[in-house]
This record gives sequence, C-alpha cells and structure tokens, in this order.
Amino acid sequence: MAQPTCHIKIINGNTCQPMTANINASAQAIKFLNTEIITVQPQTGPESIESFYDEYLAIPGILEQIILDTSSDAFILACWGDPGIEAAREITSKPVVGIAEASLYMANMLAAKWSVVTTLHRVRDMVEKTIQKTGLTARCASVRTTKLSVLDTEQDRTATLDILIKASQLAIQQDGAEAICLGCAGMSGLEKQLEARLGVPVIDAVAAAVKMAESLVHLGKSTSKHLTYRLPEQKEIKGYNPHFQAQSFYP
Amino acid sequence: MAQPTCHIKIINGNTCQPMTANINASAQAIKFLNTEIITVQPQTGPESIESFYDEYLAIPGILEQIILDTSSDAFILACWGDPGIEAAREITSKPVVGIAEASLYMANMLAAKWSVVTTLHRVRDMVEKTIQKTGLTARCASVRTTKLSVLDTEQDRTATLDILIKASQLAIQQDGAEAICLGCAGMSGLEKQLEARLGVPVIDAVAAAVKMAESLVHLGKSTSKHLTYRLPEQKEIKGYNPHFQAQSFYP
Amino acid sequence: MAQPTCHIKIINGNTCQPMTANINASAQAIKFLNTEIITVQPQTGPESIESFYDEYLAIPGILEQIILDTSSDAFILACWGDPGIEAAREITSKPVVGIAEASLYMANMLAAKWSVVTTLHRVRDMVEKTIQKTGLTARCASVRTTKLSVLDTEQDRTATLDILIKASQLAIQQDGAEAICLGCAGMSGLEKQLEARLGVPVIDAVAAAVKMAESLVHLGKSTSKHLTYRLPEQKEIKGYNPHFQAQSFYP
Amino acid sequence: MAQPTCHIKIINGNTCQPMTANINASAQAIKFLNTEIITVQPQTGPESIESFYDEYLAIPGILEQIILDTSSDAFILACWGDPGIEAAREITSKPVVGIAEASLYMANMLAAKWSVVTTLHRVRDMVEKTIQKTGLTARCASVRTTKLSVLDTEQDRTATLDILIKASQLAIQQDGAEAICLGCAGMSGLEKQLEARLGVPVIDAVAAAVKMAESLVHLGKSTSKHLTYRLPEQKEIKGYNPHFQAQSFYP
Amino acid sequence: MAQPTCHIKIINGNTCQPMTANINASAQAIKFLNTEIITVQPQTGPESIESFYDEYLAIPGILEQIILDTSSDAFILACWGDPGIEAAREITSKPVVGIAEASLYMANMLAAKWSVVTTLHRVRDMVEKTIQKTGLTARCASVRTTKLSVLDTEQDRTATLDILIKASQLAIQQDGAEAICLGCAGMSGLEKQLEARLGVPVIDAVAAAVKMAESLVHLGKSTSKHLTYRLPEQKEIKGYNPHFQAQSFYP
Amino acid sequence: MAQPTCHIKIINGNTCQPMTANINASAQAIKFLNTEIITVQPQTGPESIESFYDEYLAIPGILEQIILDTSSDAFILACWGDPGIEAAREITSKPVVGIAEASLYMANMLAAKWSVVTTLHRVRDMVEKTIQKTGLTARCASVRTTKLSVLDTEQDRTATLDILIKASQLAIQQDGAEAICLGCAGMSGLEKQLEARLGVPVIDAVAAAVKMAESLVHLGKSTSKHLTYRLPEQKEIKGYNPHFQAQSFYP
Repeated sequence: MAQPTCHIKIINGNTCQPMTANINASAQAIKFLNTEIITVQPQTGPESIESFYDEYLAIPGILEQIILDTSSDAFILACWGDPGIEAAREITSKPVVGIAEASLYMANMLAAKWSVVTTLHRVRDMVEKTIQKTGLTARCASVRTTKLSVLDTEQDRTATLDILIKASQLAIQQDGAEAICLGCAGMSGLEKQLEARLGVPVIDAVAAAVKMAESLVHLGKSTSKHLTYRLPEQKEIKGYNPHFQAQSFYP
Repeated sequence: MAQPTCHIKIINGNTCQPMTANINASAQAIKFLNTEIITVQPQTGPESIESFYDEYLAIPGILEQIILDTSSDAFILACWGDPGIEAAREITSKPVVGIAEASLYMANMLAAKWSVVTTLHRVRDMVEKTIQKTGLTARCASVRTTKLSVLDTEQDRTATLDILIKASQLAIQQDGAEAICLGCAGMSGLEKQLEARLGVPVIDAVAAAVKMAESLVHLGKSTSKHLTYRLPEQKEIKGYNPHFQAQSFYP
Repeated sequence: MAQPTCHIKIINGNTCQPMTANINASAQAIKFLNTEIITVQPQTGPESIESFYDEYLAIPGILEQIILDTSSDAFILACWGDPGIEAAREITSKPVVGIAEASLYMANMLAAKWSVVTTLHRVRDMVEKTIQKTGLTARCASVRTTKLSVLDTEQDRTATLDILIKASQLAIQQDGAEAICLGCAGMSGLEKQLEARLGVPVIDAVAAAVKMAESLVHLGKSTSKHLTYRLPEQKEIKGYNPHFQAQSFYP
Repeated sequence: MAQPTCHIKIINGNTCQPMTANINASAQAIKFLNTEIITVQPQTGPESIESFYDEYLAIPGILEQIILDTSSDAFILACWGDPGIEAAREITSKPVVGIAEASLYMANMLAAKWSVVTTLHRVRDMVEKTIQKTGLTARCASVRTTKLSVLDTEQDRTATLDILIKASQLAIQQDGAEAICLGCAGMSGLEKQLEARLGVPVIDAVAAAVKMAESLVHLGKSTSKHLTYRLPEQKEIKGYNPHFQAQSFYP
Repeated sequence: MAQPTCHIKIINGNTCQPMTANINASAQAIKFLNTEIITVQPQTGPESIESFYDEYLAIPGILEQIILDTSSDAFILACWGDPGIEAAREITSKPVVGIAEASLYMANMLAAKWSVVTTLHRVRDMVEKTIQKTGLTARCASVRTTKLSVLDTEQDRTATLDILIKASQLAIQQDGAEAICLGCAGMSGLEKQLEARLGVPVIDAVAAAVKMAESLVHLGKSTSKHLTYRLPEQKEIKGYNPHFQAQSFYP
Repeated sequence: MAQPTCHIKIINGNTCQPMTANINASAQAIKFLNTEIITVQPQTGPESIESFYDEYLAIPGILEQIILDTSSDAFILACWGDPGIEAAREITSKPVVGIAEASLYMANMLAAKWSVVTTLHRVRDMVEKTIQKTGLTARCASVRTTKLSVLDTEQDRTATLDILIKASQLAIQQDGAEAICLGCAGMSGLEKQLEARLGVPVIDAVAAAVKMAESLVHLGKSTSKHLTYRLPEQKEIKGYNPHFQAQSFYP
C-alpha cells in the first residue's frame, strides 16, 4: 500500500535564521521519502535560548507557528528543552514531538547510561529539569556543560566539535556514559564526526525527533484531548493577536 | 532598631482586575506595619490561567512587571503554579516568591500530610508538576480538583466555599490530608471560613507568600547570581519592547 | 535520495504460532514501503508468557533467533515485558527494540498520564517492573489487569475487546488515564476499535515498536558496545548448542 | 491596624550556655519590632549535639521547655536536625519551627541548588536524613562536613570562619552549590562575613527560623491536631516529672 | 563444630510488663537451642508507644538497657518503629536489630508486595517514616491502621485478632498485599492464627528480629565504627546518670 | 525443644565446579549444627556469570535444581544478581533466598552506608539493577567494579584479595562506605582477611544467605502463593524436559 505524504513542521525555538537552515538540512537528510518537512522560526523571541528568560519569551512565538499552521500532520519543537510543549499539545490534536524527549528515548534503546553534552554552564539546571520531566533521570550518567553559546555552535563548527569531543570523553571516562545526547539543536550535523571519534552512539536530537514525528503520523495517532491537553478554555487574552484567542482553535 | 519600610510588588498572574483587588485585600490585611504592598496585573495575557497555554502566554506580561519596576524590594508571583518564576529570578536580584511554594512550605510546618484543593479538573497535571518542582510530593496526600473555573472563585463566593468544603472533606476523610492548601489565588480570603468548617489548617497562598517575601527582605537576602539565575545573556529578542532586551538589565 | 530496504525481524516471545501470525499482520500493515519484516517465534519456550517462569524459559529461544540471524538490520522483542532485552543488546550491535518500552515512549508523547491494560492479575508485578525499568513510573496512572489469559486474547477477540473496554474505562474514569497502552502482543489489532470506543489514544505495542526499529535503522544507529552491552565474555556454556557459545559472536 | 506582640521562645537544643547567648543575639538582631524573643536551653541533655545519641538525650529536655511554657506564641528548635520536632508538634498547638527546615525553604527560594556546610564528618548521615525529611534532597548539591566540633564554632570564630569558607568554596566550585546553608546553630552570626567572601547567599538557620515563626504567628496558624500531631494519648510515663504526663496537656 | 551460646537481650520499647512477657514468650519459642534470650523493659518511659512523644521519651530508657549491659552479644529493639536505633548502634559495637526492619526484610523475601497492619490511626505517619528509613517503600502495598491501642493488643486477644483479620483482608483484597507484617510488638503470638485465616504469610516482627540477631552474631559481625556509628563524642550530659556520659563507653 | 534438622540447597549460579566447592566450604563453616547443606551447580549454563547473556542462559539450569529437588526446606541462589529469583519463588513454596538481597539486608543493619565491590567493570549496570530491586539504592555509597573476572576470584586468591582491598579502600575513603558487600559468590571466604585489613564490616553474601534461609525455615515461613508467586499457569513449554512443564508442579 502506498503511504500518503506526511507533512512535518519543525519549529526552531530560536529566531536565529542560520540555525533554522542547519536544522532543516539535518532533517531533510534523514526524512523518509514521502515525508515533506518545512523548518521555520518564530516571528518573535530571542536569537538563542540560553536561560529560562529566553525560553519563556520564545514560547508565544513557537506556539504561533502551530496556531497559524493549516497543513502539517505533526510538529517538532527544535530546541533542547522542549519549550512550551504542554501548551503545544493543548492547541492542536496533531502529534507534537520535542527534540529533547525524542533523543532521550532513542538513547535509552541504545545504551544503559548516557550523558547530555550541551552549551553554557548556566543551563545545567534547565537540562536537568528537562530530563526529569521525561522521567529518565536514573538513566542519565551526567550533564556536561561547556563554554559554548548556542550561536557558537553554528559559527565555529571546528571549535565546537573540539569542545564537544573533550566534554564527551570526560562523560565516557569519568561518568560512565555509554552514549552521548547532543543537548542543543545547533549541534545537529556533528553527530557522525563525533561518533567516529568517540566510539559510542551520538544522538542528534533533531534527527531523532523527525523519526518520532513520522512514526506518530504513520501510526495515525493524535494527542489525547481527554483532560490535560484538551483545548484551552475560551477567554480574553490581552495584548495578543486575535489568532491567539482560544476561541480561534474551536471548530 | 526601627526597621525600614519593605516594598513588595504582588503580580497577579491573570489579567482579571477583580482578582487583583481580591489578592490585594488579602495581602494588605496580613502585611506587617512597615510593609508597603502594591498589587498589579500584567498588561498582556489571559484573564485567568487554567491551562499550560494560558500560563505560557501570561509569563511575558508577568516578567514585564518586574522589568519595569524600580522601587520594590521583593516580588510575589500570585498564581498557584508560580509561572515563570525561574526567569523572574534571572532578571532581578530581589527575592521572588511564588505563592505555590510559599503555601507548601507553610503547610509542611503545620501538618504531616496536606492536600491541594483547586480549580478545574484539567489542571491536575499542572498542579502535580508544581508540587514536584518544590520537592514536596511525598508530603502531598492528594490533589483534589473541582468544577470551579478561576473566575468562578471570584464571582460566586458562596458556591465556591461550598465546593471547596466538599472537596476538602473528601481529602481529609479519604486521602489522609491533615491540612488544606488552597490552589488558586482567587480563593484568597476564604481560608478562615474554611478552617472553621473543616477543623484543620487551611493555607491561603497569597498570605503565605507575603510573609515569605517580608522574611527574605528583612533577612537582607538576594537571589543567587552565581550560575542558574545569573542575568540572561545579552542578545536580540525579536518582537518585544526594548525593555525586554537583556542589555536593559545590565548595570 | 532513495532509502535502502530495512530488514526487521520480529520475535514473538511466545511459541504460539497464531500469535505470531497476528503480530505479523499488525506489523505488515504499519511498516514503511521499503521495510521488510519477518516475524518468527522461538523454537523453545512456553506457548505464552504469563509468569516470571514462562519469561525466563522463553529467553534462550528468543536470543537464539538473534544469534542465528544473518540478515536483519534490527530486532523487535514482541512480548510486553521485553524479555531478555539486555542480553539481546549484548549479542548483536543491531538495534533491539522492546514492544513495552516502545509503547510507553509513544504514550508519553500523546498524553500526560496513561494506563497499561493487560492480561491476568498475577502479572501486575511483572508489568510494574517493566515500567520501572523504562523510568516512566511517575507517568503511569495505573496498571489494570484482567481475567484474560494471553491465549484468550487470540482466541476470542469479541470477548477480549469487551473486557479491555471495561478495564480501560475504569482506568480513564477512576485512575486518571488519558491514553491506554495495550500490555500484550496478543492484543495487537484491537487498538482502532478500542480507540473508537474510548475516545483516547490506544497504543498497540507491536506497531509502536515497528516504528521505533525503522527509526533506529534509518538513523544508522548501533547499540553501544562501550561497557554494559559489549559482547559476552568467551567461556564454556554447558548444555547449549554451539551457536550459543559466545566465541561464535566474535568476528 | 496595629499588630499584637508576638512572643517566640527559641530552644537551643544544646545545654551549652554561650551558644544560647549567640543564638539569642542573632535572633534579637533580626526580629520584627513587635516580636519578643526569649532564648533558653534545656535543663538536661548534652552540651552539644554531634551524634544520634546526643540528639536523643537532648529531646526530653527540649520538649520540657515547651511543656512548661505558658506564654509563647510559637517555638523554634535551634539545633540543625530539628530534634524531636514531631513530638513538639504533638504537645502544643502553637507553631513549631525547626531551624533546619526553615533554612532549606529559604535557600530554595534563592538558589537552584544549595549545599549544607556543617560540623564533624560523622554527622553526614544525620544531615542527609534531615534534608530527606523535608523532601528537598533533589535540590541539595552536597553536604560538606568539616573537622569543626559544635563547641569549636563558638570558641574560635576566626578559625571557624576560615574552615567554613574553604568548605563552602569546594561546594560551589566542585558540587554546583549556588547558595550555602550553615548547618549548625553555633555558626549563627557568621553569615554576613561568609556571604561577602563567597559571593552567594549564605543562610543563617536561626534567622530563617525567626522569620518563619513570626510568619506563622501573624498568619494566625496552629498545628493541625487532626491526626498525626494530635495530643499524645494519656498513659503512665515512668521516671519523668509529672508535667511530662500527657494528661497535663489536656484541657 | 559446636556453636557457642549466643546471648541476646530484647528491649521492649514500652514500660508495660505484660508486653515484655508476651514478647519474651514469642522469642523463647523461636530461638535456636544455643541462644539465651532475656527480655527487659526500660526503667523509664511510657507504658506504650503510640506517638512521637511516647517514642522520644522512651529512647533514653531503651539506650540505658544497652549501656548497663555487660554480657549480651546482640540487642533487639522490640518496638515497631525501631526507636533510637541509630543511637543504639553508636553506643555499642554489638549488632542491634530493630523489629520493624527485620520484619520487612523477611516479608521482602516471601512476597512481591506486603502491607503493615498496625495500631491507632494516628501512627500512620510514624509507620510510613519507618518503612521509608529501611528504603522499602516501593514494596509496601499499604499501611492499614486500626482502632487498637497498643495495650488493647495485649489485653483482649480475641478482639485484637478479629480486628487484625478484617484490616488484613482489606489490605489483601483492595491494596494488593501478598503478605502481612504485624506492626506492633504487642501483636506477637497471633501470627499463626492470622496466617491460617488469611492464607498469606504473616510476619511476627519479634520472631523475625530474633532470627536476624542470631544470624549477625553467628556471622561474627559488629556494627561499623568507621563514621556514622562511632562512639559518641565525650562531653557533659546534664541531668543524666553517670553511666550515660559518653566517656563511660570508652575503653 | 529440640529443633528439627533444616535442609538447605545452595545453587551456585555458575557451572564452575571449583566455585561450588568454595561456596560449600563457606556455607558449611557458618551453618547451625542442625542444618544440612548441599551445594550444587546447574547441569546447563555458563561457567561464570558476567553479563546479562550469561545470567539468562544460567536461569533454566538454576530452576531445574529446584524443580528436581524433593527434600530441601529452602533454596539459596548463590550468584550475586539473584538470577531468576522471582521464577524460583513461583515454582516452589519453600523459601528462596538470593545472596545479593541477603547481603544487603545484613549490611543495612551494620552500617549507615555501604558499597558493593565486585568483578568486571561491565557488570556495573547489572549490580545497580539488583540493588534497585531490593529498594536499597539510597543506602548504597557506591558500586566499585574491578578487572577481576569471576573465575579470577577462584584461581588467584592473593591477587584477588589485593584488588579487593584497593577497591574497598577507595569506596571507604572517597565514596563514604562504612561497610563492604562482596558482590560475587566467588569472593566467599575472603571476608575475614578483608575485614582485618579494612577495619569495617565486610559481608560475605553466601554466609549471609545461609543465615537468612535458616531463619525463614525456623520461622516456618512459605513464599506467598497469593498472586505474583503462585504456581505458573499450565501450558506447553517447547524444547524443555517434561519436568519443566508446569503441570509437574501441581499436586
């Protein structure tokens, strides 16, 4: 039986266009033949997400990309931290996949323990909370932060690779990691080189999420509208465009 | 020694003005003599917070009330769920208190087990996640949700009281609760009547938070700027007013 | 770019041939075009797995299906309980997916809380341990066992459906489930009818695992051979055929 | 409205008088104007608490200070470990605050992770159990013990300061602490100097507890007498003074 | 090889003599031939332990029975709650066994899940904390409290049996218990009748502890004096007899 | 009263005969006078268990030793990892003790924190899962793996002792261990020498299990047949001898 085309919209959580292009390249390279992917970035929000402040200011713009969408079969939130994902699941019944959760599930099937290697030291608490939300804290060997900003990961790939290798080797040798999860969408595309150097599986979160979204679409699944993720209650929402008003979501 | 005046700004998480007035009344009634309290509501965001979607759209407006402030010694986030509190702690070094955490700490000092009695059934997962974030899940006897919307709690106090009594009695008799935490700022002011009827301590989260904020100010404490809560990195934030740009926070 | 054919071997954990046929039908119906699936059953082991005893006696036969394989790109363990999966990951570097873990990851992306609805009451502890192993216990609303034996689920589909509907409705109404995971490979194929009746997502574990296995293959991933899942040490293994001797796995 | 005077009795858990004086000085310096504080020490019990043995022998004398009291509105147990606090909550309906719990709640509102820096190495397990009892283990970066005895902390303030600085710096640099909780009442009064040297919030547990006790009194709260903390059953208690007999607590 | 006589002292936590006799009878009936058991009660403390207050007042008298002992090879704390056990382990290097922990270890080897059936409703929190301290909370199906006081269990054996049967049946039928732990030393001696009626293993905590103490003695084990359980520091302890002074423990 | 003879069968999990002899020697040395012990090894399975693969292939042979037994009062699974213990508890109502669980319970009564010192680095995950299954993870200071294979522990006792001393010292000095559990049956017999060198309790798991099995027999306890551990359902089990068919277990 021929399978119908599956349309996936990937939403870069950051407003940085080069990162959108990088994410898109990784996604296009890994998608199934009959998957159509478009990668977008929010109209509003920070260039990069490196603090809770950045994350919260990014969320309305991320949600807007879902609200205004009319044709996608599934959405991917492409920022490790899965910003606003519970709200995304409220405003659409299409599957919504976070790249953080997708990468951790993949890692869990390949290794007994894994580490997350990521950007600035200050994000440690954000990363730990994200892992906690998936429930997989006990499988996490460590979180290794670095001096890399999110934008660094895009702009100097060689230096980035070097820093990630060093941090990953520490995770493997000192913390007991048996696989590495790259904790930033900006690191997408480096996984093969890292894997060659490290000798353990390295998970690109964007690629993992593309596979998860394709899977949910082909399984014909929708987000549960039974309780937590039902449509938001209708009410006035001040200072946001009309399409943000919950009544716009109701049939 | 005469204690200096302590200025506290309470930020109603909702844009519903009558709730702001109710919160303010509770706060003024419980404050110390030399505390000055102003209660505000965000310029933007939903009338009431009853979903993750509502919560995330409320956060930028909540944070703006901190950004534009020049004179407060501490801030209170007056929505049970403590929306955006990590970001609030990044953008100011003044203490920030969430009403949820404050009420749970108070309950913990008064009872071996407590329940949270709150609004719509759909918020159960939000409430459980808030309790989880404080670390006090093991002390929670149950979360009892009701058919009350947030605005109901303001508009029909008699019916609200009735529903809260019934839900609380079930928590006490069936779940082992020995105290009740009211899980919505809109329920503020009903705690005395409930306590009289139930015979166990009933915690008004707004009042609890006022005491916590006063305490932190008098202790002379500031939020740690060492790692997680340091000022957000400077970068372009699209579609937000200039005062949202992180460079505006830097000295 | 044309994607290469992906060969997946599904190993029914039970030696019951009709269940193999049922699993195969579900898998063939959901696979991608360029996936080739064969479904097998062990040469040795119990007709059905309903106790720890059954499970442990099934494992050598399950592992043999991997040992003797020369052409598959990935393996699926098709018994909810993922019997012997850590050993399976030791003896091959090809991805190995358990249907239990796969179904729970899918459920986690669709619902805030889910329940597992499954066979005989005696398996409750086995099911709870399986959920614990994935780390997702906190997301599980309940385990609902029934009077259904594994073979019942194959032999009387109407009665099975009826019992599953009743158990699922209790999970939704009393336990707070927002999605249902079917906790037995024998229930594969009933998910659409159940979903229509229940109004919440119902996860067929076999279909979920097919998608996970395809995903891992297309991502080009191998099981980590760094520590826990490296090849078994070489030694004498008494009473097993020569192909079970670890030296047969070494290049 | 003028607020009525609030009377707080602080009970030094140790029978060492100079520590009582030090605790009192810290408390008097931080109290609100209309708070009256008296600080006492038990008639019986060890000079200092540095083992479970010390702690258990201290408890009857601590409880006696509550039993014989007729005028206080709240009690503070001034020994990090909150010795006998559940019993204290049984024998009075006045709020009882432990300095350990109070300091941890304050730390939780100021930092994402904190460490407890304390006395002799042997108390590590006691300290970990105290943190566990509050439920905040997941927020604790580390427990750093030292070679300081409790009496050392009183007798050589310069050496104490020095040792605490070194231990705190290790907690910050190696363990990820973003605030420091001083884990002994005898360290009260050193927090400002430590804060100046360390650059992160340092919590004096005595001061934190004074604020918590004032808060509970001004909120008009009583300990729940519903189940766990109801008055002890009446019975003969051998070898204790008549005022220890439970019937003396009954109205 | 002939085994040397093993001397065990059982310390009833309560000062109620008939309970001492009952405990002793159970212990004598189950001991090995070459075990000598004496059962004592404290000189000071409450008739029965039914609150945290009772427990803390009992501890000094319990510890005194260890301090004054010169000939025992091991000690058993015969009050479900294991009162003061950490202190007991500090003041002697002989093994100290709590009846609660002993009974839970035995239950864990006989059943996948067990319940504790015990006395007054108010002790629920105490019992849950005791289970938590052993680490076995996840194996506990439920705690079932009753209207039985500790002394009731001694005085009316028929009524006690009846109430325990009813509570145990609820634990088995509604909570999933597959064995029952009797949560009070006073219930010792009823386990055979209960087992006959319930059809699941019923653990008498006193008997379990006798076996554990004998085991530790025959294994030749001493309590670790390395850190937590080393001898208490020497210091003045006011209001206690000279034998309570720590220097009396030092060689 | 003269106690009846207690017959215990110890099942070495490995098929290595010298290890059986070593286990037997340890057991005979520690048993009570009226205990009769026989130590056997499976007819089938690996020489030593050092991977999940080894463990799963060992289990049928281990279970067979129980199935074919007609005279033992209790069984001991003598491989740290307690392989197949849930199944063992299903096929007999006689008590079944695992050496891992037995050693951890003993350690828990002697020390606040303990470490497991064991064989090859690759078994870390297996060991952690075994500890997790007992529920005692929070009491575990660390797992220290070494370069010792299981057979090494038998063949070169001097080198083994040396390596165990070094690993244990690291556990004590760096991880906070206050006792050591030897994590392999092959290490049985070295505990006295280790204890002398380390100065903390060292638990031989075989000896611990002998005491636990004797205890359960003398207490007259049987495994609960209520739910999880009831006899396996009757069904065809292909490729196994007739005595493996469940109907052979039924009366």
